[in-house]
Amino acid sequence: MLLCDIGNTSYHFLDGSREYKQDVKTFDPSSIKEKVYFICVNNTLHVRLKSLSNWIDLSEYIDKEKYYKTMGIDRIFAVESVSNGIIIDAGSAVTVDVVKNDEFMGGFIYPGIKAMQKTYENISPALAYSFNFECDLDIMPKNSQDAISYGYLKTLYCEVMSHQLPIILTGGNALEFKKIFPDAKIDTALIFHAMKKIIKENEDRLC
Amino acid sequence: MLLCDIGNTSYHFLDGSREYKQDVKTFDPSSIKEKVYFICVNNTLHVRLKSLSNWIDLSEYIDKEKYYKTMGIDRIFAVESVSNGIIIDAGSAVTVDVVKNDEFMGGFIYPGIKAMQKTYENISPALAYSFNFECDLDIMPKNSQDAISYGYLKTLYCEVMSHQLPIILTGGNALEFKKIFPDAKIDTALIFHAMKKIIKENEDRLC
Repeated sequence: MLLCDIGNTSYHFLDGSREYKQDVKTFDPSSIKEKVYFICVNNTLHVRLKSLSNWIDLSEYIDKEKYYKTMGIDRIFAVESVSNGIIIDAGSAVTVDVVKNDEFMGGFIYPGIKAMQKTYENISPALAYSFNFECDLDIMPKNSQDAISYGYLKTLYCEVMSHQLPIILTGGNALEFKKIFPDAKIDTALIFHAMKKIIKENEDRLC
Repeated sequence: MLLCDIGNTSYHFLDGSREYKQDVKTFDPSSIKEKVYFICVNNTLHVRLKSLSNWIDLSEYIDKEKYYKTMGIDRIFAVESVSNGIIIDAGSAVTVDVVKNDEFMGGFIYPGIKAMQKTYENISPALAYSFNFECDLDIMPKNSQDAISYGYLKTLYCEVMSHQLPIILTGGNALEFKKIFPDAKIDTALIFHAMKKIIKENEDRLC
């Protein structure tokens, strides 16, 4: 079974246990002849894929009423894979979503590491530091690098911990955030788990 | 007595009870003949002012050992004006400093409103919203505007409240943040208070 999670820059495939990526700009989806189950956040590409009969759009099998209109399909699928927990998807943005008893309670969006570093740098060249993920968040900082690291990380930490739920980390920067949330479980394949779950639940219509 | 707090864009004067501003680019400090007590975060201008004998640099009267080397003189003066509390100076950056029993405990730096809105906008045009300061921070958001507003404001709120100290708001965006911290005291003249205090403490050397 071939699964594909399509972002703005790449096709992320899962073929059995093998994962690989293709560039959105150069990959031709019609080169694949077998059935591909996909989700796609890229609108232009989405229209193109709808015209290919072997590309099956799994977003159509989701009860969208449970979510909000402008919520990204990747966030929805991450939420679908969790019954109880707070999901931190750390990429270009950090999305934080809360699920209780299989119900989506809502979520928020925080800037990703690169975006936030750029923000501090733009405010003042004196703040052009990388974040210190080893920064002790129990002590108020007394140097510039820790002052921005704490500003970015401790604020997020406080909010996330206040929910008192198991934390699931996913996305390209999951490992960095694991330093801040040491008890979190890392699962970089959340979306693929949800895709498999949706396929299983809709076996009669899909297979 | 003429006081002046100099930032990167303007001279902020207090003449008795009258406040006014002059543009850093066009104002000539040598046009003032009377004594001016000042602090200045603008390095180039600082050098110029040191050559004018009637411009008295109050930063020299601070015990810098209590602070850290790269800490802005405006933050130091705001801290000098408070005995117990958490100071939120909301401008192009939001600096948050903790003072307990006249001792500086440390502080952090968070992006200002404009800088953070730009950050979300740069991550995705779908996040190009103004922040909703009326957003209910007790409820997890279920729309994009509240998802970024909560991401910016609730994270800061959680961290600030965890200190359980009186909150003092200052800076150009103090009024917006008052909506998030309704019990905070607004004091836009913190730095001038500190300047007066330093002058009083050093009367014999200064007057």
